[in-house]
Amino acid sequence: MKSIFADVITIGDEILYGQITDTNSQWISEELDKIGIKISRKTSVGDNETDILQIVKEAEFRSDLILITGGLGPTSDDITKPCLAKYFNSKLILNQDVLKDLQEFFSKRGRELNETNKQQAYIPDLCKVIRNNYGTAPGMWFQRNGKVFVSMPGVPFEMKAMMTETILPQLKYYFNTPFIYHRIIKTIGIGESFLADKIKDWENTLPAQVKLAYLPSIGEVKLRLTASGEEAMIKSLVDKEATKVKELAKEYIYADLEEPIEKVIGEMLKNRGLTISFAESCTGGYVSALITSVAGSSEYFTGSVIAYSNKVKENQLGVKAETLKTYGAVSEETVKEMAEGIRNRFNSDIGIATSGIAGPGGGTPEKPVGTIWIAYSDKHKTVARKLLLGKLRDINIKQTATATLNLIRQSLP
Amino acid sequence: MKSIFADVITIGDEILYGQITDTNSQWISEELDKIGIKISRKTSVGDNETDILQIVKEAEFRSDLILITGGLGPTSDDITKPCLAKYFNSKLILNQDVLKDLQEFFSKRGRELNETNKQQAYIPDLCKVIRNNYGTAPGMWFQRNGKVFVSMPGVPFEMKAMMTETILPQLKYYFNTPFIYHRIIKTIGIGESFLADKIKDWENTLPAQVKLAYLPSIGEVKLRLTASGEEAMIKSLVDKEATKVKELAKEYIYADLEEPIEKVIGEMLKNRGLTISFAESCTGGYVSALITSVAGSSEYFTGSVIAYSNKVKENQLGVKAETLKTYGAVSEETVKEMAEGIRNRFNSDIGIATSGIAGPGGGTPEKPVGTIWIAYSDKHKTVARKLLLGKLRDINIKQTATATLNLIRQSLP
Repeated sequence: MKSIFADVITIGDEILYGQITDTNSQWISEELDKIGIKISRKTSVGDNETDILQIVKEAEFRSDLILITGGLGPTSDDITKPCLAKYFNSKLILNQDVLKDLQEFFSKRGRELNETNKQQAYIPDLCKVIRNNYGTAPGMWFQRNGKVFVSMPGVPFEMKAMMTETILPQLKYYFNTPFIYHRIIKTIGIGESFLADKIKDWENTLPAQVKLAYLPSIGEVKLRLTASGEEAMIKSLVDKEATKVKELAKEYIYADLEEPIEKVIGEMLKNRGLTISFAESCTGGYVSALITSVAGSSEYFTGSVIAYSNKVKENQLGVKAETLKTYGAVSEETVKEMAEGIRNRFNSDIGIATSGIAGPGGGTPEKPVGTIWIAYSDKHKTVARKLLLGKLRDINIKQTATATLNLIRQSLP
Repeated sequence: MKSIFADVITIGDEILYGQITDTNSQWISEELDKIGIKISRKTSVGDNETDILQIVKEAEFRSDLILITGGLGPTSDDITKPCLAKYFNSKLILNQDVLKDLQEFFSKRGRELNETNKQQAYIPDLCKVIRNNYGTAPGMWFQRNGKVFVSMPGVPFEMKAMMTETILPQLKYYFNTPFIYHRIIKTIGIGESFLADKIKDWENTLPAQVKLAYLPSIGEVKLRLTASGEEAMIKSLVDKEATKVKELAKEYIYADLEEPIEKVIGEMLKNRGLTISFAESCTGGYVSALITSVAGSSEYFTGSVIAYSNKVKENQLGVKAETLKTYGAVSEETVKEMAEGIRNRFNSDIGIATSGIAGPGGGTPEKPVGTIWIAYSDKHKTVARKLLLGKLRDINIKQTATATLNLIRQSLP
């Protein structure tokens, strides 16, 4: 089977000059990779006719699929639509469906459709319109000599909705892409090289059709198994291998879906009917913010105390002045009292605490920057763990959060 | 003066396939923009010889400067160095300085320099080496026909250090770039189009040499004034315009440096000798996490209560059961009692509270998703503000945080 190649093009001065981070091209590449379309190149150009026409021409020469985002706004600096009309020798004509979408969009928001915005309903006559359910700029699908060109808005959630609901299914159909099967296995609390070492004998015996990727992030490593071919056959093949590797690394695996650890913890708490509360010192609210980023977290999260000062640790959490004096705020004794304190005061089933020196200041020879204690407490037990991290404040906070969520995962009854 | 053009190339399968977000090219573009080098194009290609040689050739044709990151690791999938050696018809020879750097790097970490890592000391004989003070892969500087090619490691902090300490100064010298002066003015609490409207008369009278850019992010708009030419002259010109616009939009301006609002709030509190604490409901710890992301925040931040459940609002903050029953948790009355409660319980000078429906669930006809109350309290006054936001949980949390920090800025005595 012949491979399908794609060029991904992001258009916009604000991307070219580094005023915003382009997250679109990453997301698009990942989605194309999932359906087996290979990316040849990713390019950013500015809102400039010569550059836009030139890169589309190059991409047409190189690839079967050209995906373009950006430059579809109503203002005069956005010129992707007239450029594509010129490229395909196509006329802009008023599209009644899009006009209706626009009228509805503005009337819902209690605003008039002005002349500038009405321009968005003029569409090249040679393209297929892709309706935008979340914004005002419609997408465009062109075809020429078996190649496909798709232009999408640059606003990430509008682009993602268009891709998921319309473009990806149509691309699969148009290019008759092979069935591709992915299995995701998410691990936490083990470094990439240690994990690789642990599973290397299994990796060496993987069937040639099954590809393995290691995808590391802060405190986590995601394994991805991929194969393509006849559906039932490859599913059974990949699933068999997934079962094997899950057994080999089981103590580190927290999900076999594309789910963040904070969501998995939430599910675990819901299933067990347990509530949780946090006493955060060095993480300053970051762990609670992660937990509450999950919709529906109010079912199991009661609340937290962020205890930066020792007074708050004493008054709000009931940490003994004696403990703070003898062992210090960054100690096994204090962090355990914090975890027990929050559990009792907030009347929750599980109490969690963090206390450490995130940096850059506050380190001492015995407790250098990066010394962190975390603790878990339920009615049967209280356990603590020490982390020795690096010098960078933001990374220390994130790594502590990941380690804390992993401690919950390992300790829940 | 003739413009200098640059191509920025990021190399790596993990970028091309969307496994990691490329933040390097944004940072590099911003830095080049600051010294007046124009970016023609940004491209990502995989770890593949044909593609690397091809894009470097295209970039050489198009630009005066070609900046490349990635593909310099010690393992066999990283091939940028042999590709550049081939491109310039240059031989790899052992560089004694780099070898010494490597030996030192490994001995400091108590590890042996193995054969794989020793390969990193082999450098094309036609390039100038750029030492890497933070990692093992050195950078390379090539010149041909007045054009400059620089290859750097893909690890962001290694690349940034190399750029800042060595490459940017050398580029300024080599290309004799003009003096460029930027003034940043950061605004909060006003949308881009309203701000533009407010300052349009001034904008229309801007001298032609002074360029104005609007750089919006969630809840904020950054203004950037730029001009290039003779140092004393343009500084005085730009500063004069900055003074005018700061007067026009003064109630929205919080900084004229590249500083985040949470850092500015921290400075305001420090200067006034005030302490602050937060009672967060719908923001779930996000505001406290922002405040504590600033090094040294323990000087003014005492702590917070994250009060998701009504019980926590009553027990930990002293919100009256009656208030919750009569007005609900998302109300002016409750959010004010929360702000006063945290201030009293935590014995801080300023108490701040948030309570709202972040979504996606929990909305009612009278209080739809996106209804948020925020409050500020000090010993003289307690004020509240209502926000009517959208449907997206993560955006609602971020917007509430920005509005809350802005409320503090406006209310501090």
